Amino acid sequence: MRIEDALARAQEAAAPEVGRGRLAEYIPSLAAVDPDQFGMAIASCDGQVHVIGDADVPFSVQSITKVFTLALVVAAEGEDIWRRVGREPSGNPFNSFLQLDQEGGRPRNPFINAGALVVTDRLQSLTGDASGALRDLVRRESGRADVSCDPEVASSELEAGHRTLALAHLLASYDNLENPVDEVIGQYVEQCALSMTCRELALTGLFLARDGVLSDGTQLLSARQTKRINAVMLTCGTYDSAGEFAYRVGLPAKSGVGGGILAVIPDRGVACVWSPTLGATGSSAAGLAALDAFTTYSDWTVF
Amino acid sequence: MRIEDALARAQEAAAPEVGRGRLAEYIPSLAAVDPDQFGMAIASCDGQVHVIGDADVPFSVQSITKVFTLALVVAAEGEDIWRRVGREPSGNPFNSFLQLDQEGGRPRNPFINAGALVVTDRLQSLTGDASGALRDLVRRESGRADVSCDPEVASSELEAGHRTLALAHLLASYDNLENPVDEVIGQYVEQCALSMTCRELALTGLFLARDGVLSDGTQLLSARQTKRINAVMLTCGTYDSAGEFAYRVGLPAKSGVGGGILAVIPDRGVACVWSPTLGATGSSAAGLAALDAFTTYSDWTVF
Amino acid sequence: MRIEDALARAQEAAAPEVGRGRLAEYIPSLAAVDPDQFGMAIASCDGQVHVIGDADVPFSVQSITKVFTLALVVAAEGEDIWRRVGREPSGNPFNSFLQLDQEGGRPRNPFINAGALVVTDRLQSLTGDASGALRDLVRRESGRADVSCDPEVASSELEAGHRTLALAHLLASYDNLENPVDEVIGQYVEQCALSMTCRELALTGLFLARDGVLSDGTQLLSARQTKRINAVMLTCGTYDSAGEFAYRVGLPAKSGVGGGILAVIPDRGVACVWSPTLGATGSSAAGLAALDAFTTYSDWTVF
Amino acid sequence: MRIEDALARAQEAAAPEVGRGRLAEYIPSLAAVDPDQFGMAIASCDGQVHVIGDADVPFSVQSITKVFTLALVVAAEGEDIWRRVGREPSGNPFNSFLQLDQEGGRPRNPFINAGALVVTDRLQSLTGDASGALRDLVRRESGRADVSCDPEVASSELEAGHRTLALAHLLASYDNLENPVDEVIGQYVEQCALSMTCRELALTGLFLARDGVLSDGTQLLSARQTKRINAVMLTCGTYDSAGEFAYRVGLPAKSGVGGGILAVIPDRGVACVWSPTLGATGSSAAGLAALDAFTTYSDWTVF
Repeated sequence: MRIEDALARAQEAAAPEVGRGRLAEYIPSLAAVDPDQFGMAIASCDGQVHVIGDADVPFSVQSITKVFTLALVVAAEGEDIWRRVGREPSGNPFNSFLQLDQEGGRPRNPFINAGALVVTDRLQSLTGDASGALRDLVRRESGRADVSCDPEVASSELEAGHRTLALAHLLASYDNLENPVDEVIGQYVEQCALSMTCRELALTGLFLARDGVLSDGTQLLSARQTKRINAVMLTCGTYDSAGEFAYRVGLPAKSGVGGGILAVIPDRGVACVWSPTLGATGSSAAGLAALDAFTTYSDWTVF
Repeated sequence: MRIEDALARAQEAAAPEVGRGRLAEYIPSLAAVDPDQFGMAIASCDGQVHVIGDADVPFSVQSITKVFTLALVVAAEGEDIWRRVGREPSGNPFNSFLQLDQEGGRPRNPFINAGALVVTDRLQSLTGDASGALRDLVRRESGRADVSCDPEVASSELEAGHRTLALAHLLASYDNLENPVDEVIGQYVEQCALSMTCRELALTGLFLARDGVLSDGTQLLSARQTKRINAVMLTCGTYDSAGEFAYRVGLPAKSGVGGGILAVIPDRGVACVWSPTLGATGSSAAGLAALDAFTTYSDWTVF
Repeated sequence: MRIEDALARAQEAAAPEVGRGRLAEYIPSLAAVDPDQFGMAIASCDGQVHVIGDADVPFSVQSITKVFTLALVVAAEGEDIWRRVGREPSGNPFNSFLQLDQEGGRPRNPFINAGALVVTDRLQSLTGDASGALRDLVRRESGRADVSCDPEVASSELEAGHRTLALAHLLASYDNLENPVDEVIGQYVEQCALSMTCRELALTGLFLARDGVLSDGTQLLSARQTKRINAVMLTCGTYDSAGEFAYRVGLPAKSGVGGGILAVIPDRGVACVWSPTLGATGSSAAGLAALDAFTTYSDWTVF
Repeated sequence: MRIEDALARAQEAAAPEVGRGRLAEYIPSLAAVDPDQFGMAIASCDGQVHVIGDADVPFSVQSITKVFTLALVVAAEGEDIWRRVGREPSGNPFNSFLQLDQEGGRPRNPFINAGALVVTDRLQSLTGDASGALRDLVRRESGRADVSCDPEVASSELEAGHRTLALAHLLASYDNLENPVDEVIGQYVEQCALSMTCRELALTGLFLARDGVLSDGTQLLSARQTKRINAVMLTCGTYDSAGEFAYRVGLPAKSGVGGGILAVIPDRGVACVWSPTLGATGSSAAGLAALDAFTTYSDWTVF
């Protein structure tokens, strides 16, 4: 089936879920988003983009940035980061503090919050400006030079951030932060608060489907590194529903509480879907339904 | 690279690991196996088989059968089994009883022991002879009509089986077994004790790489069902090292404490590797190294 | 205040709770008990007994026997049992399997089910007839020669006993049972199913308030051993509400799902209260209220 | 046996343990203490004090202050604090974050660090100066007007305090702190850093043995409130070894990582023992041995 048609089917499949579920409540400006939006973009490896719905409406990228931050760290220094963070699924949401504490302050994987704090911390050490490095990457790849952080979201997150602070201090108590807690938190929050569209995110993620090659033809990651990041996304990218997500969608993917999901189809392209309300698993329910349908109709799948 | 050459590279890469680590100790007849063996077989979707090393030496299949049992249940009645068993990684080995108890007696996934007991129980209800149904499948697909259970292994397992009995009774306390505990345990142990070679296992698993089509051209599973079982294997097939395994090998796979690993490369074929000693994660260390090298050199990978 | 008056106040305080809450449901014959009963007996160290309400109605003793079984084991061989069972509170109900598994098959304390299985197993090894030894003790001390096990309760428990079987097999997997699982379970269930009255239980427990001296003046336990068993009762005797119980009642006590509670006031006497319905913590809510009031009015307390 | 003699026996019993074990390492000024010290003081309800060894050497009181802080809060507003903190043993050290997180930010009891933060927070709200209120109490009762905080210890603790900060932020994320995290931490650390002698601590704690009556005859707590605090000390006062401590010593007690232990013998008096090295359970090993012997020889015990 043609991509345009698979996209239309995906939108149909998602329709009953759009607006159902809850908005991320702990961040006031996310809780104020119109819940009835839905957008999806497919960027092919050849650079073509197909979109449907609200694919050009900016939303809060949140945890999807964790993939890009990880890619930047691996690009800068290879595999060293794995000494400080694991790559196993976490199993249970309530385990986050328990596991961190029992496993000597080494987060389970780079996509849970504790792990992303460690990755951000490392990127900060490597670049002196983690958020700037991330911004450079997304601006260059998305083609929009003014992608930036939503200051209202960032300041909401800082205020509501006791849980993130608790994780950061627990990491620090195990000497698994190189920079001061406040600096790491500041960088982390700024990254999460990036505001981007489905189209922009799909374009930005394209290197993950192209063995690490950026839009200008340079190599951000080796093919092997890229494959490995995709593998970690598949097993750990959607929190405690990684198994469910793999079962239904079968693609490496990273979701965010803003309602976005980025999914990689190696050698084919990247899908980005967005709808603000979240299902029980903390990912966009409409997005999950759309990706499930899209992979079924397009046969863009890894299994 | 040609498959023969990739196999040779895989054997080279595995060589330093062969004989290192520990044998499964709790079963006397497994602990008595010569640790310095290594075999590997690749069955292509076209039915060709390439082998290297001890690929025709029978070994104890153990948990690898869990994939086939699951396939038989899904083939018989579709998705109903998921009401009784989840499909999320378990996160931590010590969690098996905790999670089962906290999650109302519904095992995390069909590949941990508790989950496999539920799947076996269901197959027993559906067929009246779970082990017989499994034996029929492996005999037909492997082409060896006398594949059977090693009675010494089975009786060792029964004797050492207090932990499995504890899981079964905990399942029963949550009404998640349809058949008597002893009957389910008997069937379960008989399945685990199957004795097969790499070549035979690779041939048996080929339907997982061929969208569910058996060697005689009939459809055991639909393409969608097959894809889903592969997805569950990737996220849950190698116990608590599913993330690590995906990172290094990037293929749906199921390992057993006998030292075998079965890996699926959709639309390409199936790899089966065997070497009896186990690494820290409970899977064959040499097998993991061999698969890592094989996917790198052959480019048979899903990511 | 005189004991008679304190008893009357205790009954008043308990009245609003009598019949509220739930009966133990998993044992049919316990679920069939008239929920509106309440009895209490106080046995003083001098042998006098004061009673109120249904203090002469027999009920299912259940876990209260765990104290007597422990006393018999300590009497027979001193402190050896503590190598196989701890004496720390368990913290959380859902932890029973987790802790047992993480702590190498050594139960947290002798009053959780896993611990009582180990104590019963040891008594069986020491006597060849654990239930008989217990029966001898309770008959002798209570003064009723025909105290015995309710066969209907025992057989109900055996049928519903998957959870207990799971614990026993987990203990066996760690080599922490000396006798076959079925034999230990049989003895354990027979003990729990003893049927006794408040008066009889108070008389039986009196040695715990008299530094270990039995009704015939012989010494079952040394003063030091008795003090220690009382200490373990105070920290571990009422499951996950030991802290709450100590806070409100301030006495060493052991409760059972039959609705009975035995409390020890060292050098003063023993209280036994019974009312069949259980509060959220699994102990008799009316019994807790009665003991709270009794200690307040009588000033029989340890703190 | 006379108290002087029981004290001498206690010192003898403790001698082999003095200097064994480890000093609290995470606070440099505690790690620098001479490990071979031992002191003990007994304050009787009549106001007499008996001492032995280094009973007049000041040491870092640490967690022992948690009892006094709790007493001040209960004195000020009764039982309200129990809405924000429980009174059950915590079961396991590694559970501190898990339990706090699973139980909605309500610490298990007032003597684990998370609970003490909540109690300090409340005292801060009630008094505007939690540390000042505590200082007033200990100065008045100990009879030394210049008891104060060791600034070096306090600043060491602040620096090493990531774990405490993590707990405080996790509490804040559940809205279980009324004051800013930094203010609560500041007060908390200042309290822990109090420097006092065995003699002074025994005198300060005497109200716990005298039904709440202070040295000047005024009532800080009611008899019932005092009994209840003692009960919580017995079940929760010595971290994860409350059961072991009750078994061996049989008294309500609170230990600190400075090596001090305060134990209450209701209606008799208060014992304070100090020796800087800690056993496996985090309490002074020599102190535990001394109290074990003292209760045995003096028969000052609650059971």
